[in-house]
Amino acid sequence: MTLSPSPSDLTGLRPFYVMEITARSKVLEAAGQSVMHMESGEPGAPPAPAVRAAVAASLDLPQHYTPSTGTIPLRQGLIGYYRDQHRVTVPMESLMVTMGSSAAFILAFLGAFKPGAKIAVTRPGYPAYLNTLDGIGFKAVEIPITAESGWRLTAEDVERAYSAEPFDGLLFASPANPTGAAVTGDTLRAIVEVCARLGVRFISDEIYHGLDYRAPSVSALEFTDRAIIINSFSKYYCMTGWRVGWMVLPEDVRTRIGMLQQNMFISAPTLSQTAALVALSERAYSEEQKAIYRQNRHTVADALAQFGLASANEGDGAFYAYVDFSRFTNDSLGFCIELLEQAGVAATPGIDFDRHNGNRFVRFSYAGTPATIAEAMNRLGDFLKRR
Amino acid sequence: MTLSPSPSDLTGLRPFYVMEITARSKVLEAAGQSVMHMESGEPGAPPAPAVRAAVAASLDLPQHYTPSTGTIPLRQGLIGYYRDQHRVTVPMESLMVTMGSSAAFILAFLGAFKPGAKIAVTRPGYPAYLNTLDGIGFKAVEIPITAESGWRLTAEDVERAYSAEPFDGLLFASPANPTGAAVTGDTLRAIVEVCARLGVRFISDEIYHGLDYRAPSVSALEFTDRAIIINSFSKYYCMTGWRVGWMVLPEDVRTRIGMLQQNMFISAPTLSQTAALVALSERAYSEEQKAIYRQNRHTVADALAQFGLASANEGDGAFYAYVDFSRFTNDSLGFCIELLEQAGVAATPGIDFDRHNGNRFVRFSYAGTPATIAEAMNRLGDFLKRR
Repeated sequence: MTLSPSPSDLTGLRPFYVMEITARSKVLEAAGQSVMHMESGEPGAPPAPAVRAAVAASLDLPQHYTPSTGTIPLRQGLIGYYRDQHRVTVPMESLMVTMGSSAAFILAFLGAFKPGAKIAVTRPGYPAYLNTLDGIGFKAVEIPITAESGWRLTAEDVERAYSAEPFDGLLFASPANPTGAAVTGDTLRAIVEVCARLGVRFISDEIYHGLDYRAPSVSALEFTDRAIIINSFSKYYCMTGWRVGWMVLPEDVRTRIGMLQQNMFISAPTLSQTAALVALSERAYSEEQKAIYRQNRHTVADALAQFGLASANEGDGAFYAYVDFSRFTNDSLGFCIELLEQAGVAATPGIDFDRHNGNRFVRFSYAGTPATIAEAMNRLGDFLKRR
Repeated sequence: MTLSPSPSDLTGLRPFYVMEITARSKVLEAAGQSVMHMESGEPGAPPAPAVRAAVAASLDLPQHYTPSTGTIPLRQGLIGYYRDQHRVTVPMESLMVTMGSSAAFILAFLGAFKPGAKIAVTRPGYPAYLNTLDGIGFKAVEIPITAESGWRLTAEDVERAYSAEPFDGLLFASPANPTGAAVTGDTLRAIVEVCARLGVRFISDEIYHGLDYRAPSVSALEFTDRAIIINSFSKYYCMTGWRVGWMVLPEDVRTRIGMLQQNMFISAPTLSQTAALVALSERAYSEEQKAIYRQNRHTVADALAQFGLASANEGDGAFYAYVDFSRFTNDSLGFCIELLEQAGVAATPGIDFDRHNGNRFVRFSYAGTPATIAEAMNRLGDFLKRR
């Protein structure tokens, strides 16, 4: 039994097919088989030692709710982050600490748009975008992007899509999940400008910032104070399960998003805010992790080139390779199940990211250890030879 | 300047007026004045020592996302909780661990109702109910309850309200915020039954469970498997800032709420789930805290009776007294500001809980230390004498 989507599944709320992979890999591992995990978008390392020490030191204090906008020290830390990383001054009152970027997306949609508004996203893209929009009563407009352009969105793509079907907002991530694509600062500026011209609210998902391999990460804040910025401690700071992220809010949405946050979420986890503040000063540790991903990125790109997979070039950022397997399959979930069961490699079927063309693609996360990634690539090579 | 509501403020998204009290009390304390805090619905104590030890011991492990439904050990612990506290067997697949009850309310509304559905709540009630419903596109129907009935909702109240304006769901808390009112098991059963007869989905907010002073807490699960149960580790287990709660889901909403959780929230904080599992076994510690609240409850009721405040009877549960000050004010925020500035007692204006009649009421939380509560009541007495 596979769960590949029928045409009726192309819209609406849908579970993640990768859950099928996760469930099957648990069964295999329980039976003693080894599985190389490349399906999860999570750093394997814990947060920096100083982060953990700070949390341990605060454990005997009551962990009360914080101000709904986040603790003052953490927001001061974020002001420093924008000054140091982006040479931008953000006012304290623009910062909102959230329960991960997950809550931030909800707040952005509900706080900046009318019910039923249309929000554009790329296809392929992060599946929770579509499902969250659908779940809370917004409409997604998908802008297709392709491997030929390195999966990089352009201002022209935005303008063309808007001409075909106007939208109220654009939610865009650079670096992106599942492709690892990142745009240059010039392209980001052009996208910001075309949004301004079209009257489209820009939401910049910057949760993979810090994990750009070609150039320093560029924030939309460097070009505008009208965008909603969403970021997170999950990826660069190895804090996925801590559920802490943040937003930088333009002035016109602060009051409404502030009230929504207060009522819908109260405040982000207190210990996680303690951890997050320290993490901001521990970038050297994050850079060590990034050096590992960078090495893995070469391993994956080299292997894919060797296997003759056309789209095999090194990603721009994050820790994902989104690979065209159309020579081998038109059923990405079925393919991933075989890859798991026959070769012990767990990867994510492309249909989780693209309900139209995703059956030709598989996403590999290279956030694991170099040994895991190298062995996974060996196994993938043997698996492909046998087909 | 006060922020008392104008008639146009009786519906729609609104900030909490208590924030004005919080802000002013910070200014006073920064200037060296002493403030007795009775405005916050938060236990002063940290979680049990064994909880903190378990968290400390897990800090060096990566804190990855958990399954979106929550960790298996925590859900097993919750199965034990329902068996031990309520003699009810809940299946593992009915349990959903959430980012506090805050996320649980959002999931319940979006998962069990059509957009624009009407959900009934009591007035007075928890203000986030109204604001969250409004924020995500539902309509609240308020069922007025009064001091004369001990603020206790009855099945007849529900039926009468439904006749006047039919609704799709009823969200009800026992014990309740801000009144501390709790209904008996028989009344809860009658409310569950009337909802079933009317075709109204019942959502039982049980976040103050464990904090009933007259009888053991009764869960709606004892009477039905069709209700959505929402609970939290915040209050009884002293874990407000940990942001972890849970739901028990009837079968027909599990798939949709499961998908919403996965996409909108991913999973509850991992460390908080570790803490929550241990907390379930540390009820002796929670009972020690409850003994303090019980003592404070007497202190408050005795003082209010002495001040001749008509509604001064001991609450049924939680740690709140909701007091009619109409002899003294018809502007509860203004009154609370004077009480703070002239007497150094912080309390919450009733307008946060009741946009119609709340200007006559003030909520006092007695979750603080006995010394704080006793001193606050002394100060309140002197303040009232001077008026």
